[in-house]
Amino acid sequence: MKPIAPTPRTTLKRRSDRGSFDRGVIHAILDEGLVCHVGFVVDGQPFVLPTTYARVGDELYLHGSAANRMLTALGAGAPVCVTVTLLDGLVLARSAFRHSMNYRSVVVLGVASVVTGEREKRKALDAIVEHVVPHRRADIRGPSREELEAVLVLSLPITEASAKVRTGPPVDLEADYAMPCWAGVIPLRLTAGNPEPDPRLAPGTAIPKSVTDYRLAR
Amino acid sequence: MKPIAPTPRTTLKRRSDRGSFDRGVIHAILDEGLVCHVGFVVDGQPFVLPTTYARVGDELYLHGSAANRMLTALGAGAPVCVTVTLLDGLVLARSAFRHSMNYRSVVVLGVASVVTGEREKRKALDAIVEHVVPHRRADIRGPSREELEAVLVLSLPITEASAKVRTGPPVDLEADYAMPCWAGVIPLRLTAGNPEPDPRLAPGTAIPKSVTDYRLAR
Repeated sequence: MKPIAPTPRTTLKRRSDRGSFDRGVIHAILDEGLVCHVGFVVDGQPFVLPTTYARVGDELYLHGSAANRMLTALGAGAPVCVTVTLLDGLVLARSAFRHSMNYRSVVVLGVASVVTGEREKRKALDAIVEHVVPHRRADIRGPSREELEAVLVLSLPITEASAKVRTGPPVDLEADYAMPCWAGVIPLRLTAGNPEPDPRLAPGTAIPKSVTDYRLAR
Repeated sequence: MKPIAPTPRTTLKRRSDRGSFDRGVIHAILDEGLVCHVGFVVDGQPFVLPTTYARVGDELYLHGSAANRMLTALGAGAPVCVTVTLLDGLVLARSAFRHSMNYRSVVVLGVASVVTGEREKRKALDAIVEHVVPHRRADIRGPSREELEAVLVLSLPITEASAKVRTGPPVDLEADYAMPCWAGVIPLRLTAGNPEPDPRLAPGTAIPKSVTDYRLAR
């Protein structure tokens, strides 16, 4: 895949060694995340709200209520920033100054547009369900026409984007390595617990493999 | 504790039943999170970047390199939004439309200021280390004068803030409850794996309880 072209806005000003415009790296981070943080501006004030999403090819889909003010503003052409962060570990150094975190993050900048066609809209909504729980879509009822109209779907092209990744052990000052102080990484990951059935589950309903075998970090 | 006063900017426009201005709720979410997403505006374009932080009383501390352009702009009075999101579960409904997530999030709006006094600066940096790994500070070397000067510390008062929380099973359309479709919640949590010692650990260095007993969701 061709790398994404850097722009002045996506070029890291610092620690550029941690940056990447590799489309495969960017897509993998977007595909692993479940929640993105959407940044938008109202009267000069930035707002950052969490929401779910899906990537299909070089498009990022967001969705929400058609009454949602953030989505309505973004659909009208307000500039947006979508950030996805995966936290991989706590980096414990010998000095406070060199403590850090291992993470993988992606920032996508641009202008979104409203998805209006019924077919693309359904495709985007299906992609969001499948992104969060693969194989779920086949088990559930799809949107009715009324539900489809109540949802606003936005498409953001992944054309101005970059990734930033930190991995590995702490990097201490040379003199500090002799300190009798434990240093290393505490790895972190998001894990799924035992599924909790809805108290109103119809009797005898089987639990599907998509739920019992649910795995993060696919 | 007195609740935080709502403002038009922090009052939920939709699903206000999920909103809270309770200071205890807001503080608990901020204290459990490890990473916040900081929103700021450059030339009308919103940017959202992840970073760590700590809460001390009604102040949120951010830090980074003194050369960091985001922190420098925020320290100069640019409006900021700091959002912390804890993802608690995937809510699997019988219809695509009613799929959701269980989460706890906090949004803090305002203007940050640069922490200039050495004593408060050290206190803020210590708080960030302790926030991420409790009891870590006593084991490590604190910032030298040069390191202290290389760090910019910002303080953001938690005075304009709100929380949003979703818990519980899916809420389906009444007619959908009869569907022979599994529904419920897949709980999610960030978990710590086995600590990975730095390959350059001084021989015989003991691993402290703060690392072996590290627990998230304290």
